Amino acid sequence: MIFRQLFDAETSTYTYLIADRETRLAALVDPVREHVARDLALIDELGLTLAYVLETHVHADHITGAGLLRQRTGARSVASKRGAACADLHLDDGDLLHVGNLVVRVIATPGHTDDSLSYLVGDRVLTGDALLIRSAGRTDFQNGDPAQLYASITTRLFTLPDDTQVYPGHDYRGFTVSSIGEERRWNARVAGKSSAEFSAIMNGLALPPPRHLAVAVPANRSCGEA
Amino acid sequence: MIFRQLFDAETSTYTYLIADRETRLAALVDPVREHVARDLALIDELGLTLAYVLETHVHADHITGAGLLRQRTGARSVASKRGAACADLHLDDGDLLHVGNLVVRVIATPGHTDDSLSYLVGDRVLTGDALLIRSAGRTDFQNGDPAQLYASITTRLFTLPDDTQVYPGHDYRGFTVSSIGEERRWNARVAGKSSAEFSAIMNGLALPPPRHLAVAVPANRSCGEA
Repeated sequence: MIFRQLFDAETSTYTYLIADRETRLAALVDPVREHVARDLALIDELGLTLAYVLETHVHADHITGAGLLRQRTGARSVASKRGAACADLHLDDGDLLHVGNLVVRVIATPGHTDDSLSYLVGDRVLTGDALLIRSAGRTDFQNGDPAQLYASITTRLFTLPDDTQVYPGHDYRGFTVSSIGEERRWNARVAGKSSAEFSAIMNGLALPPPRHLAVAVPANRSCGEA
Repeated sequence: MIFRQLFDAETSTYTYLIADRETRLAALVDPVREHVARDLALIDELGLTLAYVLETHVHADHITGAGLLRQRTGARSVASKRGAACADLHLDDGDLLHVGNLVVRVIATPGHTDDSLSYLVGDRVLTGDALLIRSAGRTDFQNGDPAQLYASITTRLFTLPDDTQVYPGHDYRGFTVSSIGEERRWNARVAGKSSAEFSAIMNGLALPPPRHLAVAVPANRSCGEA
């Protein structure tokens, strides 16, 4: 398997390239519109064919590159059944997506947003904004729900093997990867906390709204093509 | 082996944590002074003991965390024979450093600076500012020499197996890792270029001096303790 983590410094967003070495088929997860040229150049240099563009959820902080990427490559865009209607393919919990010989297992992890999905590929899980390193995605907009997020993290993600590598949708402190075992033990918002305690933490964050919320959410609902 | 890539967004610097799963002994490569607390917390959470702090070279853009780390942990600081005199241990080309059961092989890769070292651990090479992803470190200060850097990259790094993973000291475009095969083929400054062509590119960059040059170089020569 080919696996690449890519970063957008402007919004601290991680994009992931996953590809099958044999068939050279690839998927991009959570591409950022400003980096479409970078990502396409990398795909080309690695001799890959982009088959799918996956979203973990409708983002509020950046605009997806999905629309541009499907226009330029013919790749199919993929989102949650509760996510962007513009997507070519809609996934739900338990679905399997085949990228050549790779199998991507869909785990519904709502709570940051109601459409949030995590993607398990081998021993790596791409957790979007549900589980972040030592943290968790905010729950104060787009139908966020802290009790639901707590359940997603503790019953769906923390039940994966401890050595599963956690690749989040963002990091703001310079971390690139963690593991399920580590987050079970050290996640500052979840570890050793009840659902009520987690909700109290999340409801008390008092964060300013994401800078690009009013623009990004509608743009992402139309795959970044609006 | 435990391997973690850490990022400093201010200077786009990568720090690496490498550790032996069995003995739990660890080394940090190119730590940034502002992130000493983050790095020590991670080392603690992973149940590791910091044995060494390695520098790839005397940095001009950030101040090393080496001094603080050795004060707080008793770890030994390690640098090139041509690097910071303050280090506890000085390495040269071909030296092997043992971190528990891990072996770090030292490859001298001068040219960005005259003290630049790369570190090979298993199938990963930490290239400092010699080989960057699709790029190479600037050569216009601190005894930089483009012809020397070209030789370091082409005769010392590009002779490693193609699937060796390349982990650089910086990236400014959101890349986290590459491979020797990829850089041999696609490096914009080196691939298909002669030494003279590479020197012409490097000498024509006309970059402004690093923002923190006047402070960082003397600070790093005293392990960040001045």
